This record gives sequence, C-alpha cells and structure tokens, in this order.
Amino acid sequence: MPEKTTISDMVVSRLPYYLQALRHMASQGHQVILSQELGTHLGISAPQIRKDLSLFGEFGKQGTGYDIANLIKQLNQILNTNCVWEMVIVGAGNIGRAIALYQDFIDRGFRIAMIYDNDPQKIGSRVGNYTVQDTKGMAAAIKAKRINIAVLAVPAAEAQEVTNQLVEAGIKAILNYAPIAITVSPDVHVQHLDPVVYLQQMTYYLET
Amino acid sequence: MPEKTTISDMVVSRLPYYLQALRHMASQGHQVILSQELGTHLGISAPQIRKDLSLFGEFGKQGTGYDIANLIKQLNQILNTNCVWEMVIVGAGNIGRAIALYQDFIDRGFRIAMIYDNDPQKIGSRVGNYTVQDTKGMAAAIKAKRINIAVLAVPAAEAQEVTNQLVEAGIKAILNYAPIAITVSPDVHVQHLDPVVYLQQMTYYLET
Repeated sequence: MPEKTTISDMVVSRLPYYLQALRHMASQGHQVILSQELGTHLGISAPQIRKDLSLFGEFGKQGTGYDIANLIKQLNQILNTNCVWEMVIVGAGNIGRAIALYQDFIDRGFRIAMIYDNDPQKIGSRVGNYTVQDTKGMAAAIKAKRINIAVLAVPAAEAQEVTNQLVEAGIKAILNYAPIAITVSPDVHVQHLDPVVYLQQMTYYLET
Repeated sequence: MPEKTTISDMVVSRLPYYLQALRHMASQGHQVILSQELGTHLGISAPQIRKDLSLFGEFGKQGTGYDIANLIKQLNQILNTNCVWEMVIVGAGNIGRAIALYQDFIDRGFRIAMIYDNDPQKIGSRVGNYTVQDTKGMAAAIKAKRINIAVLAVPAAEAQEVTNQLVEAGIKAILNYAPIAITVSPDVHVQHLDPVVYLQQMTYYLET
C-alpha cells in the first residue's frame, strides 16, 4: 500500500465511484469487468481508471479485465471500509431523519450509532429504530464509544458551534449537510453536501 | 461575461461556496468583506478567491474588500440563480421527502414544483404542501411546465430508466441521490450526492 500522502485527492475521490459501480455489477451477477466497461458506466476514461488502480497494485491482467469480487475487496481495504464505521447524526430534522433511515449504509461500511438534537420536542422521539438523544450527552458518548464520524444536519447558525463540540470529542470526519462552511483543524476531514451548492454548479451551465 | 467554456469547472464549483458564505455574512449584518476573511471562512486561499472572481469582472478594490450585497447579486447572475428554477423530485422515500421539505431552496434560486413516485402506497400521500404524483404523468408535466432540473431519489435499480425518461422529457440537470452512476447525453449535467461515496472519500484518510 503506498503512503497516503503520495496519492492525490482527485484519485482518492474516484475510488468510491469505482466501488459503487463494481458492487452494482456484482449484484447483477457479473464476475469480470474490463476497464472500458467500467469507464463507459462512470463517464471516466479507461486509461484513467487503469492508472488510478495501478497506483495501489496489480488488480487485473491486460485484456482479461478485473475480477470484480477481488477488486471490491481491494477497494474496501484501500478505503478502510472493510470494517464498519459507527457514526452519529446531529440534527433530527428532515435531513437528519432521512439519513438515519437510509438503508444503504451497513453493506458499505457504515452504521448510525446515535442521533442527537437539542430541541426538547424532538428529544425522546423515535426515528426508525433510534430514539433521538439530547445533545448534552453527545460529547461524552462519542468519547466513550470512540466514534470518528459525524453527520451534521443542523441549521447554519448552529453548525460551527456543534462542529467545535464534535471535534473536541474526537470526531475526525464530518459529512456536512448544513448550508454553511465549517472551520476545523487540519486533521479533521469535511465533505459538504449542501444540495443548493450542487444545483448551482449545474445552473451555471443552463440556458435561462 | 466570459464564454462559459473558457472558465474551468473547478472555478465554477467554488462559486456557490462563495455565494453561500457571503449570504451568511450578510445575514449577520456585514456589508464589506476582504478576500482574506472569505478565504479563512472557506479554507480557500485569498489569492485563489481574487483570481476566481476576477475572471468575471472587477468586483472589489484592492485593500477595501468586496461589497457583499453587490457580490451576492453578481454571483447569482453568474450562476443563473437570480431567477427561480422549478424542480421535480422523483422518489418519495426518505431522501425524496426530506428534499421536498427542505426550507433552504426558495431564497437561493430553487423551488420544488412536483414530487413523483411509482408506488401506489405513496401516490396521493402528502409531503408538506405537496401531494405525491404518479410517475406516469411525469414526462408530460415536465414538458408542459418546461422544467429543467430533477432530483433523483429512487433505488439504484430504477435510476437509469427514470433518468432516461427525465432526459427525454427535457431535463437538463439532475441531482442524483441514487447510489449508482447514471449515463446521460453530454448536454445533461449530473451531480452525484450518494452519502456513502463522500464518507468513503474521508475514511481513506482515517486511522483504523
């Protein structure tokens, strides 16, 4: 396995899409895939795919394609998703509840451990199999369970303060659905999923 | 305004974050912002921000910063969000419903027009102010209302077929929450928001 720092973020960002596509192929009963087929499915060139994967090892033979089950296993190992990561959700509004009920986590390396809110109306209410907990106990529970990942689904005005609490409690990766940038120390990873940002990245190109 | 094709996708992808931050600053009563402050808030260097914005015009004077209200107006014009885009949601499951109930669209250039599903149990049910419609009437309604944007929140197995119907009906931009890549013609824009992909882009860097 190469040093983490030698692989560019752009390469890393493509790996989960390869894994997503391969899992789909496997679910359809396929056992082998050519980089050309994978490329057509993902809109990424076959040479790019071969180059990306070759950074991590020899996963296929020229002309015979990749063994799908093996490549899934290797990608899960590279992405650290051969284990299951426990996550907390902060915010039991519409987005937080939808994420808590999302069915597609467990097979792909993630599990919701707890969901939190600071609204007395929401604390104690049920979301699927979860009971919404008071954020007062959040930091202690994250520390006790050594949880590394949080889903942030709070209003913009509260996002930074909650982030500070999460990072203080040991969170190292935040999936941020709040419509605002959050500031973290360099050892904490953040992905922004504000839907409006992604919509605006497309409307730029649309004719009005 | 420069030709769309002369601006890199990377620059375009940063503009909605500038707009998001500026709206937050304005909501806190600020009127002027230096590129350094904007950069600190977003984790983007000040020279990068000045360079990005200078591609579209002269929005600030050296040393005095940007007029926030003016820059918001200019960015909305650049991103085509000085109008309101109508959108359809396909899929009235957890994610589709959460998006339908999302409060942060209208002020930022977007409005949900309709929500669709093909499940008889869901058709006719209420989601906030919306009634879930049968996907059978979807293509005709999109054409009649000349809707350009769709939010795809269907299971992976149905994603491509629904995408084909949407594109055939005239959809030019798709926000894809389905956990699978979709194939579209080059004139259609797609953004993938599968949460697991974004989580895996972070777990790569975490210590296990």
